[in-house]
Amino acid sequence: MYQFFYAPNSCSLASHLALEFSGADYQANKVDLAHNEQREAEYLNLNPKGRVPVLVTESGTITENPAILLFLAMSYPAAKLAPLEDAFALAQVMSVNAYLSSTVHVAHAHGVRGTRWADDPGSLADMKRKAPAVMVDCFTLIEDKLLAGPWILGDQFSISDLYLFTISQWLEADQVDPRQFPKVYDHRTRLRDDEVVARVIAGQ
Amino acid sequence: MYQFFYAPNSCSLASHLALEFSGADYQANKVDLAHNEQREAEYLNLNPKGRVPVLVTESGTITENPAILLFLAMSYPAAKLAPLEDAFALAQVMSVNAYLSSTVHVAHAHGVRGTRWADDPGSLADMKRKAPAVMVDCFTLIEDKLLAGPWILGDQFSISDLYLFTISQWLEADQVDPRQFPKVYDHRTRLRDDEVVARVIAGQ
Repeated sequence: MYQFFYAPNSCSLASHLALEFSGADYQANKVDLAHNEQREAEYLNLNPKGRVPVLVTESGTITENPAILLFLAMSYPAAKLAPLEDAFALAQVMSVNAYLSSTVHVAHAHGVRGTRWADDPGSLADMKRKAPAVMVDCFTLIEDKLLAGPWILGDQFSISDLYLFTISQWLEADQVDPRQFPKVYDHRTRLRDDEVVARVIAGQ
Repeated sequence: MYQFFYAPNSCSLASHLALEFSGADYQANKVDLAHNEQREAEYLNLNPKGRVPVLVTESGTITENPAILLFLAMSYPAAKLAPLEDAFALAQVMSVNAYLSSTVHVAHAHGVRGTRWADDPGSLADMKRKAPAVMVDCFTLIEDKLLAGPWILGDQFSISDLYLFTISQWLEADQVDPRQFPKVYDHRTRLRDDEVVARVIAGQ
């Protein structure tokens, strides 16, 4: 059985949902980010990055959503969470996941965790002020270029959809109206209405 | 034959090296970032993100290093650029690649491309001032936790090594002395001395 470490409303939801969709046997452990539990020695021993998500397997520990998502897709092929046999289609999945982690999540983080990259209160306020516009740029690209519809790959659902869903949940907190992106909004609504997704979110 | 779009001294070197190590047939096309060629209509038509690297295959276009690297490893299995049959080991490779793209490259970018996330000259100066310390934190983690040695996975060379090599080349520009990270420094030196790597860098 896997041990999974997550925080509510964080990016770990993507991996959490993939655990459910894969049918894996796992135990979910909540990390209290509000009280900086991720900075305590016990947690840093588990994940020196001090972040979520973390998946502890019998082979060892995996961090970073793109890695956990691919691991679950490969370990539970019957769940069909990624086009494992098609190198180009899988590259599209990993490309979207890379964009979500290195550009979109990072854009969002400037609104809430600017101290990662700057110190002065004025800089943090400047980053926070700019973050909504950067998120709009990111979601314009997603809407126009990355989301074929109904899923990212078109008809084939994949781990990228779980990751996009996770980050698209943050739009209102980033002062962005998601309804300006009709395909993203429809994508989010469909996944929010999914029974498994609703159960995971309610249980966090 | 693939068409590959790169810029000298940029992160595209990782994919460029993987093309060489895979034995793929490709043509390398230089993008002139100094003259903002990546912002011209023709290039944006190819990659709406306005970034490098881009790999154009007969199936379509791939962006983002982690995706191109995995695609090449899967398409040229004889080159043994990733542990494709071992989901956990492959997840370690993808985890390092995700960390390099979403944390380390992003830390570096705050020193040189802060306008992605802030506007005021004071904020940009603040980011630039903090970037070396953030890069030191990242490379401390790499040195202590991610680089088993001699390669990231231990004895098995992989695409992650090409990506780490690429980003470790930037340390001096980020005002960080790489010799404080002996394993990283040795890793970088070994790859710089590699005939194929030296040829690709010289030809850029």
